[in-house]
Amino acid sequence: MKDTSVFLRACRQEQTEYTPVWLMRQAGRFLKEYRSLRRRYSFLTLCKTPELAAEVTLLPIERLKVDAAIIFADILLPLEPMGIDLEFTKGDGPVIHNPPRSRAEVEGLKAIKAEEGLRFVMEAIRMVCRELKGEIPLIGFSGAPFTLASYLIEGRGTRDFTLTKTLMYQDAACWHLLMEKLSEVVITYLNAQVRAGAQAVQVFDSWAGALSPRDYEEFVLPHNRRVFQELTSDVPAIHFATGTSGLLELMEEAGGDVIGIDWRIDLGEAWRRLGYKVGIQGNLDPAALLGLPERIERCAKEILDAAGGRPGHIFNLGHGVLPQTPQGNVIAMVEAVHHLSRK
Amino acid sequence: MKDTSVFLRACRQEQTEYTPVWLMRQAGRFLKEYRSLRRRYSFLTLCKTPELAAEVTLLPIERLKVDAAIIFADILLPLEPMGIDLEFTKGDGPVIHNPPRSRAEVEGLKAIKAEEGLRFVMEAIRMVCRELKGEIPLIGFSGAPFTLASYLIEGRGTRDFTLTKTLMYQDAACWHLLMEKLSEVVITYLNAQVRAGAQAVQVFDSWAGALSPRDYEEFVLPHNRRVFQELTSDVPAIHFATGTSGLLELMEEAGGDVIGIDWRIDLGEAWRRLGYKVGIQGNLDPAALLGLPERIERCAKEILDAAGGRPGHIFNLGHGVLPQTPQGNVIAMVEAVHHLSRK
Repeated sequence: MKDTSVFLRACRQEQTEYTPVWLMRQAGRFLKEYRSLRRRYSFLTLCKTPELAAEVTLLPIERLKVDAAIIFADILLPLEPMGIDLEFTKGDGPVIHNPPRSRAEVEGLKAIKAEEGLRFVMEAIRMVCRELKGEIPLIGFSGAPFTLASYLIEGRGTRDFTLTKTLMYQDAACWHLLMEKLSEVVITYLNAQVRAGAQAVQVFDSWAGALSPRDYEEFVLPHNRRVFQELTSDVPAIHFATGTSGLLELMEEAGGDVIGIDWRIDLGEAWRRLGYKVGIQGNLDPAALLGLPERIERCAKEILDAAGGRPGHIFNLGHGVLPQTPQGNVIAMVEAVHHLSRK
Repeated sequence: MKDTSVFLRACRQEQTEYTPVWLMRQAGRFLKEYRSLRRRYSFLTLCKTPELAAEVTLLPIERLKVDAAIIFADILLPLEPMGIDLEFTKGDGPVIHNPPRSRAEVEGLKAIKAEEGLRFVMEAIRMVCRELKGEIPLIGFSGAPFTLASYLIEGRGTRDFTLTKTLMYQDAACWHLLMEKLSEVVITYLNAQVRAGAQAVQVFDSWAGALSPRDYEEFVLPHNRRVFQELTSDVPAIHFATGTSGLLELMEEAGGDVIGIDWRIDLGEAWRRLGYKVGIQGNLDPAALLGLPERIERCAKEILDAAGGRPGHIFNLGHGVLPQTPQGNVIAMVEAVHHLSRK
């Protein structure tokens, strides 16, 4: 496997015949088959039933011809065994009914052990790996401590992160305690996924771009560094966030074999700033897939040109595929990347 | 005036005795007196009654000791005389009941003349200038064409800008027609504000950071350049947006005497990248004002240090002051900036 998969070789900055491509949220709402499953099962039922999660994970492999699968799950699932009461309301928006906002509540959060409370994810990973027979690699993933902390504290999605930042600024000790607890969960969870068969992992620090470089350095970087240091070292790790043009060097310092970026910065410029010491993943605007196929092909070419054919580029969107995306446009994108990048 | 105001001299990159400071949304919800006015009047009534708008504009001058006033208004007001049915729903969230989404609807948007439909803004400006007696400068402002277009098309605030980008990508001619019409309105509106007495203007392209550098260059930059070229040239213009670490050089190319940035990039780094050819405004995270006063002073010092005492820095937040901000913290910030920067 290590020697043959285009995706894994690109993660290691090895030369490949073409640029591998996958999409964040490729196993989600934009797929007709997914929507039809969602009419029969709730979002959490899909996540917690290994047969269903495995089925959803495999959908895009055949339909889209992407170069990697990513396990179907939600970044907030590891919060449940910590003692968090999590609900996915209509439209799949997460709500946390008992957000910890005091020192005592943070102290009360439980640690997790190996597969405890998340066995269904590992079972789904084992099922997917059996199906994929080593032909297509499977990516495991977790939210990063900051991104998990922000959902935890806000209790839902947020634009301003005011409760999160207020805790940070007013009680740094409590903040760091929360981040330590979350880091331990993230490490345990990701290493369990690797043991179950995941051949790469992605750490989603989706909202880290809400922070100033100084705040990132003080409140986030040490915890992310620990996460990457304590990951099982024989699988590549992708470190992803959005809105990080001001944080790139700090993200690289925190760790990861590949840095995932969004469309708000030129990919060539971002990779240059990282000194090509790591691979780079990205960075088509998901909204570009709402445009016309000719335009999608042109945009894909611009990104491939920005990467300059250098080994270590994994093509992806800059964030998750939008639910209203026409499936044909995704297929056109994947084909364009494969075709245009072939040596 | 030109020779004495700290704020205007800093806009022109002239040496000042201390670093001037004002806050976006300084005349808004975080002020007790503002909230008490809002209990008696609707948001639009406050905007459209010159006596009230003038009163609100002047509130922060005395309370906060800031170095500039900014006229109290909303960036969406110029849309009304274009034929747009605008409502501010509870929580002051704007909703547009007739968002133009087709070529015919875009063609149907009206141009505005001088003060037509916006006379109340000019009247408020004249009243404020009489009160300020030239001692404190008054900033006029407008949304930039892209930011106005995104509200227009989405019909409300948005995270993804999917309808906006879909129009851009699917019908570029219609997009550019809309941007031309909006540019004309912005130019007319800002020049009328200057004639009424505004001594500087700020162009809010608040959401331009949602675009990739290439999309900004193709769909926004030419229109912003025209706006800055056609502004009355004898007042300084501030060009502000958020999330623009990937767009700074393009923003500078579009125009403005001062570039306004948010906290997601180090101010020193941003100014260096701009080659010090323009002034710089920013860039404290508004959430920092929810922390403790000692920390606010430290953060203010870090930003002043990043600016390095170079003439042309205007201290501000990276976006509007948050409604829940304690007034005492704002006063502490203004005092810290004045005290720490004094030569």
